[in-house]
Amino acid sequence: MKDIRVGVDVGGTTVKLGLFRADTLTDKWEIPTRTEKNGVGILSDIKDSIEEKLKEKNISKEEVLGVGIGVPGPVDAEGIVHGCVNLGWQTFSVEKELGELLKLPVKAGNDANVAALGEQWQGGGRGCGSMVMITLGTGVGGGIVLNGKILAGVHGAAGEIGHMPVVYDETEYCNCGKKGCLEQAASATGIVRTAKRLLAQSSQESTLRGREDFTARDVFDEAKKGDALAGQAVERLGEYLGIAAAHIACVVDPEVFVIGGGVSRAGEVLIETIKKYYKEKAFKGTREAGFKLAELGNDAGIYGAARLL
Amino acid sequence: MKDIRVGVDVGGTTVKLGLFRADTLTDKWEIPTRTEKNGVGILSDIKDSIEEKLKEKNISKEEVLGVGIGVPGPVDAEGIVHGCVNLGWQTFSVEKELGELLKLPVKAGNDANVAALGEQWQGGGRGCGSMVMITLGTGVGGGIVLNGKILAGVHGAAGEIGHMPVVYDETEYCNCGKKGCLEQAASATGIVRTAKRLLAQSSQESTLRGREDFTARDVFDEAKKGDALAGQAVERLGEYLGIAAAHIACVVDPEVFVIGGGVSRAGEVLIETIKKYYKEKAFKGTREAGFKLAELGNDAGIYGAARLL
Repeated sequence: MKDIRVGVDVGGTTVKLGLFRADTLTDKWEIPTRTEKNGVGILSDIKDSIEEKLKEKNISKEEVLGVGIGVPGPVDAEGIVHGCVNLGWQTFSVEKELGELLKLPVKAGNDANVAALGEQWQGGGRGCGSMVMITLGTGVGGGIVLNGKILAGVHGAAGEIGHMPVVYDETEYCNCGKKGCLEQAASATGIVRTAKRLLAQSSQESTLRGREDFTARDVFDEAKKGDALAGQAVERLGEYLGIAAAHIACVVDPEVFVIGGGVSRAGEVLIETIKKYYKEKAFKGTREAGFKLAELGNDAGIYGAARLL
Repeated sequence: MKDIRVGVDVGGTTVKLGLFRADTLTDKWEIPTRTEKNGVGILSDIKDSIEEKLKEKNISKEEVLGVGIGVPGPVDAEGIVHGCVNLGWQTFSVEKELGELLKLPVKAGNDANVAALGEQWQGGGRGCGSMVMITLGTGVGGGIVLNGKILAGVHGAAGEIGHMPVVYDETEYCNCGKKGCLEQAASATGIVRTAKRLLAQSSQESTLRGREDFTARDVFDEAKKGDALAGQAVERLGEYLGIAAAHIACVVDPEVFVIGGGVSRAGEVLIETIKKYYKEKAFKGTREAGFKLAELGNDAGIYGAARLL
């Protein structure tokens, strides 16, 4: 019986791999991502590493259902990767190339979408067929899972919710070239910038004042301790996320929003702040959608990749 | 060979019916919607009318693939209608009930979603598997078709884009109880209100000034003739629709937006105005999405209903 799956999550510096027996992750390991020469060796490194692991575990390829792989770039429905800047990759079929190397079925997806699928399968979205993942890190990413399947979009841009134009009075440019993206208000970078702006705009007392290099975590920590200015920064982040989630709900009407990424370590205060604004902004038919924290952390990618099969 | 389908579009005053042979609409007709006694007679009226038409056309039920029906209320994936206020209907399975009456397979969907499916099949979205329909009438409705299938959403609220909270400075309430819905700025009612506000806010000359009961059509007509104030009202409608479309694209990344409803009779000027703001607000990966006018008018519902099968 084919009950072995391998999930692969290709990042800019390491490739994470996971071996699943039935639905259980039994082994996980990492190899470095060799980005030199336009990443030409990445897939053969992955092949060697998987074959070595199967040998070590005494698993024959006949037992392997296949290999799922998440990559940091747009992937279309045929498994064609349309360039991964961080890896040096151009346009080619990862599914075909890795499949020929391994002589196993391979399914590929965009890493953010694949992580969303992982959370929907065994993380914060467990039990919900339709889920929207919002990943709050240096930027804001996302992934949409509908009826248990990733929505990739016609240009591979479905779930790019970090670039929803929600901030109307933004004066600075986002990395994408527009002004007013959700990412500018709701990422780790965004909340720090909000706090710095609030400090500059007033002489309000704050435990953040005079500290030059505070982080998103510091803003949440000070807000939790009762610092009013830090609290305002958290409110602003929650407000824009609440508005964005209300928009998303009018479009795909999911069962649950799962919040992940580094900023989500702030925990329940983050969820409660987003929910407060969501309830105020959301269309009545969608107001009961749930908000959950992500549960799989950095393993979401290997879970989701395995689930692609 | 079963190549006959019937599409039924149930409205608050009339039921529209269409007979399709292969993919061609060969007959269409209407019957009144008997809403008395909580609409208890509606389905049997539909049954009688379909059977009469089949008899008239000398078509046996063996040739009929089935009947699709669009209803004005939320319909879940199992074909259960969750209340239709305009018809007096409570929660029940239209598919099961009409199927038992007709002894034919029946598929049901929400009328706005079904109209979107019709436009995707044989209207403005022809040839595009993934399409978002935006219907600009007294309110703003919508429907999402992904890979040729309607997205209903977990609460039947997918595509309820009229209630996306895009207007941040709105002071009046929407019918839904919130403030700042897209519908408040971009419906026929919305553009008239915008024009009236602009008239009240300034003494700017306008051909609309002094006219008490102008319509959305008048605003577009005067804008086309060069009236600056009417032009501003059109710009505002286009701006909010452009922003909403940019949000939608970050979520589902469709191939095309199809604009329908009474306001869409304004034609290319509407499309061009929305596109101008969309290009400015949309994430780069989604900027090439198309904008088309709807083509099927009031027949979109019967087309989409037939396509449900």
